[in-house]
Amino acid sequence: MNTASSITVIKIGGGEGIDLAPILEEFAQRIAGGERIVLVHGGSHETNVLSERLGCPPRTITSPGGQVSRRTDRQTLDIFTMVYAGRINKRVVEDLRRLGVDAVGLSGVDGGLWTGERKTAIRAVENGRTVVIRDDLSGKVVDVDASLLHLLLGAGRTPVLTPPAITRDGVAINVDADRAAAMTASALGAGTLLLLSNVPGVLADPADPASLIGRASDPELVRAAAKGRMKNKVLAAEEAIAGGVGRVVIGSANGAGAIGRALSGEGTVFERITERVGA
Amino acid sequence: MNTASSITVIKIGGGEGIDLAPILEEFAQRIAGGERIVLVHGGSHETNVLSERLGCPPRTITSPGGQVSRRTDRQTLDIFTMVYAGRINKRVVEDLRRLGVDAVGLSGVDGGLWTGERKTAIRAVENGRTVVIRDDLSGKVVDVDASLLHLLLGAGRTPVLTPPAITRDGVAINVDADRAAAMTASALGAGTLLLLSNVPGVLADPADPASLIGRASDPELVRAAAKGRMKNKVLAAEEAIAGGVGRVVIGSANGAGAIGRALSGEGTVFERITERVGA
Repeated sequence: MNTASSITVIKIGGGEGIDLAPILEEFAQRIAGGERIVLVHGGSHETNVLSERLGCPPRTITSPGGQVSRRTDRQTLDIFTMVYAGRINKRVVEDLRRLGVDAVGLSGVDGGLWTGERKTAIRAVENGRTVVIRDDLSGKVVDVDASLLHLLLGAGRTPVLTPPAITRDGVAINVDADRAAAMTASALGAGTLLLLSNVPGVLADPADPASLIGRASDPELVRAAAKGRMKNKVLAAEEAIAGGVGRVVIGSANGAGAIGRALSGEGTVFERITERVGA
Repeated sequence: MNTASSITVIKIGGGEGIDLAPILEEFAQRIAGGERIVLVHGGSHETNVLSERLGCPPRTITSPGGQVSRRTDRQTLDIFTMVYAGRINKRVVEDLRRLGVDAVGLSGVDGGLWTGERKTAIRAVENGRTVVIRDDLSGKVVDVDASLLHLLLGAGRTPVLTPPAITRDGVAINVDADRAAAMTASALGAGTLLLLSNVPGVLADPADPASLIGRASDPELVRAAAKGRMKNKVLAAEEAIAGGVGRVVIGSANGAGAIGRALSGEGTVFERITERVGA
């Protein structure tokens, strides 16, 4: 049996403009080579598209601190679940199986894989006023049932995970997939977490891809640079490192060899500061 | 460890007018009482509703023999998967978890649970002419990976299964959930299969609920009476019995104690003819 640290968790974003085919092919090659990887995916862009088609355009909540999240009422959660756990999860599993991977798709609801806490009161800024929203079906993952993942990994199967999560009371909630991936990596004792999306990493200037911050050695600098959805990725990276993951890379999901490039440090790298014995 | 024959497979239909709440509550009570049950569900009605909302109204194929099935192009399969594997599967899992069941939702694609064979040429009657359809993404389950189900059942978890299935080449296909449930029951060596829906069983006269055929002792009579979707249920029941399942009941999913009533023989009962020793 491999040691737990040989597990890698890879999150592939659900933003616009990500071509899944090359990265899933690279993923399959690595699984065939004996690597143990848990895949987590999002689905925000396709959720927005379906929401528009169904006549309920996506709405967002902006926190007083500037963090943007999806306003999730019951109807939105239904659409969200159809896209994340239905369409995208099963397409990814279908594609991976065609590539020879014994993939098993699960949402965080299944087996109570991702236990979440619902936000009972969300402070939001609307038209310049701060309001409190109490009926939102969103929250964050606070516990991961690693036993179900170990059961599947131990049987040579590859878990493919996606939101929603579920509260202890049994209510499905929208959670951020980057932070859920971070919690999963921590719970599995993963050595590495890759957060791959349609941007090359944390940019000092979001308009300039050349302004990539390669090493997150100054947390304040990285946090200040991260805008919009990148804020969640930086938070996820920091949570994973605090949870014992050795290395996190925020990098690009696009182009040939995206996984290999991220593993070799292309992107913004977060590392756990460890005592170096004999250095 | 229980013997394999103590496993029950229950299929709950996805037709209009099924109230899931009471039957899921009864299901949860039975799981709490130590029964081992695998749940299979459909989603035809909600798929039709979403198809209409998305501007692609459902189309059907009528075989020369009068069997009606869903015309499934890639867009239809996407909608089908969103509803079956996304919305309904995760809602059922959410509801069951709230009721204390450690439910894990899986489609037939996941882990290659349901291997299907795609129909490469479907003969259909259109405007009185027989045509051949070659691009349909539908077929039937030919193999069930019982090992994944045993892995979950052995860990005290309850599988909740739904179409689509997947071909050996890795293509997701629409399959009939009743017949998939029958294949699952056979593969698990289940003692009992219940096919519960919005009708009380096979009716000699579909318009008259009092014309219920209680015992399927004359296969020709039952087959002749079954119309429309009921044809598939009768076929599923016969396939399950041929596959070694002891008893199949086609019954109602509605009303208090629907599972208990079906188990006690309310509905149309199919039984395996066994050698009676010492009778």
